[in-house]
Amino acid sequence: MSRKLHARRIEGIDKNIWVEFSQLAADYKAVNLGQGFPDFSPPHFIQEAFCKALNGGFSKHQYTRAFGHPNLVKILAKFFSRIVGREIDPMEDILVSVGAYQALFCTFQALIDEGDEVIIVEPFFDCYQPMVMMAGGTAIYVPLKPREGCGPVLSSADWVLSPEELASKFSPRTKAIVINTPNNPLGKVYQQEELHMIADLCIKHDVICISDEVYEWLTYDGTKHVKIASLPGMWERTVTIGSAGKTFSATGWKVGWAMGPGHILKHLKTVHQNSVYHCATAAQEAVAVGSQREYDVFGTEGSYFQQLPKHLHEKRLRLADCLKSVGLKPVLPQGGYFMIADISNLNVDLADPTKHVKYIRFCFVKVFLTQEQYYVEHKFKHFKN
Amino acid sequence: MSRKLHARRIEGIDKNIWVEFSQLAADYKAVNLGQGFPDFSPPHFIQEAFCKALNGGFSKHQYTRAFGHPNLVKILAKFFSRIVGREIDPMEDILVSVGAYQALFCTFQALIDEGDEVIIVEPFFDCYQPMVMMAGGTAIYVPLKPREGCGPVLSSADWVLSPEELASKFSPRTKAIVINTPNNPLGKVYQQEELHMIADLCIKHDVICISDEVYEWLTYDGTKHVKIASLPGMWERTVTIGSAGKTFSATGWKVGWAMGPGHILKHLKTVHQNSVYHCATAAQEAVAVGSQREYDVFGTEGSYFQQLPKHLHEKRLRLADCLKSVGLKPVLPQGGYFMIADISNLNVDLADPTKHVKYIRFCFVKVFLTQEQYYVEHKFKHFKN
Ligand SMILES: Cc1ncc(COP(=O)(O)O)c(C=O)c1O
Ligand SMILES: Cc1ncc(COP(=O)(O)O)c(C=O)c1O
Repeated sequence: MSRKLHARRIEGIDKNIWVEFSQLAADYKAVNLGQGFPDFSPPHFIQEAFCKALNGGFSKHQYTRAFGHPNLVKILAKFFSRIVGREIDPMEDILVSVGAYQALFCTFQALIDEGDEVIIVEPFFDCYQPMVMMAGGTAIYVPLKPREGCGPVLSSADWVLSPEELASKFSPRTKAIVINTPNNPLGKVYQQEELHMIADLCIKHDVICISDEVYEWLTYDGTKHVKIASLPGMWERTVTIGSAGKTFSATGWKVGWAMGPGHILKHLKTVHQNSVYHCATAAQEAVAVGSQREYDVFGTEGSYFQQLPKHLHEKRLRLADCLKSVGLKPVLPQGGYFMIADISNLNVDLADPTKHVKYIRFCFVKVFLTQEQYYVEHKFKHFKN
Repeated sequence: MSRKLHARRIEGIDKNIWVEFSQLAADYKAVNLGQGFPDFSPPHFIQEAFCKALNGGFSKHQYTRAFGHPNLVKILAKFFSRIVGREIDPMEDILVSVGAYQALFCTFQALIDEGDEVIIVEPFFDCYQPMVMMAGGTAIYVPLKPREGCGPVLSSADWVLSPEELASKFSPRTKAIVINTPNNPLGKVYQQEELHMIADLCIKHDVICISDEVYEWLTYDGTKHVKIASLPGMWERTVTIGSAGKTFSATGWKVGWAMGPGHILKHLKTVHQNSVYHCATAAQEAVAVGSQREYDVFGTEGSYFQQLPKHLHEKRLRLADCLKSVGLKPVLPQGGYFMIADISNLNVDLADPTKHVKYIRFCFVKVFLTQEQYYVEHKFKHFKN
């Protein structure tokens, strides 16, 4: 082709850190503590539900409803009605997607136009930025920063937004703000007051809130996750993003969802029906069965939503110890899969000396295998010496 | 929101015929002969491969390579290298997608910009038009028409493109042409000479060919499917779209692919990594196992690619008889899932009298269940009287 081959919308969004890291991990035979997926299987009840769906006749092998398998949207609506404290309509207010990733994509494509500004809280999950760019929007950044003058930063709770700084980022062009709680990579879980502060700004400036809550069931040390959509005046303007992959330790199933008021969701559905149309049927059926089971045992010890954080809590402490033992300063996360560590006293010699790296991120959902633990400790000793 | 809520790109693409038809079928408890999915299960070997993947340890439950599970892209490359007659690179020339649908979406988003024209051959699978619109392009239509003066139209082979008319649609703004062979809804399978005529125009005008070949293994009465990418000078400018859903009668698995030269595919990958990122791991593994099995038995009677068309051939004849018995004139398809029928002597009283409907489309992959057969015959008798 003598002419330009590609469309303008994909300029500047072709690089992807995970493509690069996965390749590096493969090339150097390193344990990949970058990407967020567990080194264990989903719980038995949901694996069984998947096999049962596959063996249950032809219909689970064929297309299902485009905007979400009926069994799945029904139980999601029932579940989240209880949590958000309002009646959620399974057919109007929920869109099942190919993972949370595609739900985010549908949200940006449906709502963001050329010239719109989108506020993104730093540090953030890497896809928000190129997705905003692809939609023609401009990303405006506002940082979470360690609280000053409180001694060493020991917990993700020490990272906070400055209300003044956040307020200064809103403009007449602001269409949406993206928050992520529990946050990847910090592990920060936004507290009720912080969410109120954000909600007030959204309402004042008539801005949509895109709340990525894929780690909603993963909080530690008694920290409570709060849905910003449950605050007064926020349901109407919030798109909440969820992931069965993270919820049930089944990232490879790629089932996620967007939830919000029908008048917003209908636009996400338009993007969905013109980009993917259907999601995998049997996986949705399995997630429906798993969610019903969790609904029934909610709040009891038998709930996976209690068992998983307990399990990951151990891994989290183990990784923190391991990082400390080689001289790093881990910041204990309140939620999620990740932990950052202050590496400044390692004096890392980076190829590009203008780049100052103070923190790096580790995924702790996969540090328990003895083999991997060895790798982690070994690599870090090696790295330090 | 007082401001406009949605982005301009989704204006005019919110209606979807399948959403509407599925609802109608549900409301009236009718058999849905609209949408293309079988009323039977995928073959045993691939169902087993799926269950085996699910029971084979944690890794099949977690993310795999973003642009395609390694086992799958490797066997697809090996398979299609043999068919296209050139070495296809599994890592560069193939993108695994969430069904053929998402492969089409990635293609349009990656290659079509505001102001570009895309030639679409009518009648066409409904998503091409809104996907072109969403990318900011303009669809230019060119019809397949029944050959004139050859007596009654009995086969989809009687529907042809006029070379002059097609040539007249190319302009300096033409970026791509979309063909679909075997065609949905006609069942037409383009012959070598027809493809050469299209290829010559693509080369002359430096235009990309998007060839939707999801029904590539489904041809009847000895008709041969030819890949336009295998014609001289065409590999470099063709994106070929495939579907494991249609190939293995597993539409609900949502595994598809785009195949083409690396310099084009890399742009599709950029869209993919910013919209979906991963596809379901276990389903990809199962399709890989199934494809390897088909590779091994290729050209023998044991091949599903021989068994499935044999099976559907019967259903096709059955539906044709059934339609004839109620006074319709079916056009026998050479390939695919669908059959159109001339309904003009039914004198259908349409709500909108300005709309003249001569043909309607039926999906014949689901007419064999006695219950459904009853419905089809019954409804048509009812419809006629
Ligand atoms: C914050 C965040 N959002 C979304 C996703 C994507 O989730 P899914 O696998 O359901 O697409 C991830 C995955 O790592 C994530 O960390
Ligand atoms: C011509 C054509 N292309 C693409 C598709 C979508 O296929 P998939 O289910 O693999 O997304 C269909 C489905 O009916 C089709 O008929």
